[in-house]
Amino acid sequence: MLRNVRTTRIEWCDCDPAGIIFYPRYFEIFDTGTTALIERALGMNKIAYLKAYDFVGHPVVETRARFRQPTRFGDEVTIESRIAACGRSSFKVEHRLTLDGALAAEGFETRVWAGRDPTDPQRIRSQPIPAAVVARLTQG
Amino acid sequence: MLRNVRTTRIEWCDCDPAGIIFYPRYFEIFDTGTTALIERALGMNKIAYLKAYDFVGHPVVETRARFRQPTRFGDEVTIESRIAACGRSSFKVEHRLTLDGALAAEGFETRVWAGRDPTDPQRIRSQPIPAAVVARLTQG
Amino acid sequence: MLRNVRTTRIEWCDCDPAGIIFYPRYFEIFDTGTTALIERALGMNKIAYLKAYDFVGHPVVETRARFRQPTRFGDEVTIESRIAACGRSSFKVEHRLTLDGALAAEGFETRVWAGRDPTDPQRIRSQPIPAAVVARLTQG
Amino acid sequence: MLRNVRTTRIEWCDCDPAGIIFYPRYFEIFDTGTTALIERALGMNKIAYLKAYDFVGHPVVETRARFRQPTRFGDEVTIESRIAACGRSSFKVEHRLTLDGALAAEGFETRVWAGRDPTDPQRIRSQPIPAAVVARLTQG
Repeated sequence: MLRNVRTTRIEWCDCDPAGIIFYPRYFEIFDTGTTALIERALGMNKIAYLKAYDFVGHPVVETRARFRQPTRFGDEVTIESRIAACGRSSFKVEHRLTLDGALAAEGFETRVWAGRDPTDPQRIRSQPIPAAVVARLTQG
Repeated sequence: MLRNVRTTRIEWCDCDPAGIIFYPRYFEIFDTGTTALIERALGMNKIAYLKAYDFVGHPVVETRARFRQPTRFGDEVTIESRIAACGRSSFKVEHRLTLDGALAAEGFETRVWAGRDPTDPQRIRSQPIPAAVVARLTQG
Repeated sequence: MLRNVRTTRIEWCDCDPAGIIFYPRYFEIFDTGTTALIERALGMNKIAYLKAYDFVGHPVVETRARFRQPTRFGDEVTIESRIAACGRSSFKVEHRLTLDGALAAEGFETRVWAGRDPTDPQRIRSQPIPAAVVARLTQG
Repeated sequence: MLRNVRTTRIEWCDCDPAGIIFYPRYFEIFDTGTTALIERALGMNKIAYLKAYDFVGHPVVETRARFRQPTRFGDEVTIESRIAACGRSSFKVEHRLTLDGALAAEGFETRVWAGRDPTDPQRIRSQPIPAAVVARLTQG
């Protein structure tokens, strides 16, 4: 299954009064990791793939995370993201965030492929993942 | 076990290009819900309770969430938070976020009671929850 | 000119490792204040007014702020927002944020009325503010 | 005066329902630019320089920004930050954010050098910038 590795730096803006990362920021990092993974699979950036496949996004419907050691501003971290499963209208992504090789955080997401609701364009609903996308997400 | 209910409004700043809440913002709402719950249990605000019990915070070490329907800017939501368990140095909190009575999101957190690491004051580590706090968190 | 007053609480998630509000969060508070002001002027929430007047938002093109004293998590603050000027396709908003009656922060914004660019619907551009909106924003 | 250039990518998490960057996120980018600039001047990361010079941060007391064209998720932007002035206990930083060479946003900040208030360690107050720091911030 597809994998992607990126690095980022935990910044002052990511940290709370305890001096460590404020954990919702990990989910922003995971979200960016998922985008990078799909951009790599599809060979185009998110604005382009939303347009090419005519959908509005891949929102998370279920997630789970473990934070094993806090990271702090200035920490250079590595995020490895991979597709763990791909179904008809949903897919699973797993993220491992490491600091100097040690596991700091793990995230597990279930996302749906979402389009505009034809009965109310301001609302969204899940729809089948295009076969061409499934093929690319599940490639080795 | 202790419960607290609060309401908030999903704002433009909470939403993403799909027009719905960006899910890490739910974790900010859950975090604020946990703070409100503990403030209620201890009868003082967070700045005061961090000082009174001489610790740095109650960071999340594990969390899980389900997002059942998206919320959007302008939605007035209700968050019910409750202590689900309380151990020696960790405790569990559960959150239910509803919109017009319908369940929109659920969050489950395990948090630790964290103090400064005496060997390195810039680092934190878990420590026993004071007995007086356990008594208040587990009251009916 | 139109005014609106709201209150909010500075939360843990708004604060940085120095223990005070991370100043970009003030701009989120100001943005929410502007939305509340326009919702009041137009008598409908933002989702409804974006649809009713068929536009995509009122992005800030210029802003200025002074932070006179830091606020911290737990602080209950009051934000007074008012329309300071209204032109053909832009308008000015001023915000005063106070804590216990003392001025803590001030914000000054110039915003444009933005619609989809007909030549590229993924892009936006400023357009004239509808006369009915100007009338309501400039009422006493 | 000192300069630093860095690049970053505008992400989905930075954008609002209009599909463009939510402007408070520019201030996060500017804040990170200031940190990078000072880290470069002092030759150590922020955790280290806060400790070395025994202070709590350099909060913004006044800021101004112009947003000339919106950026969107996927945009690779360049931020050039420079010290514009350095006084006894405050300093000014200017940021220019460009996309494909075109100016997209400008930021102007006045920051103070802040330490713990000796009369109340939970509060902060400005203090003189150490001479060694002034020397490095004002070098060519």
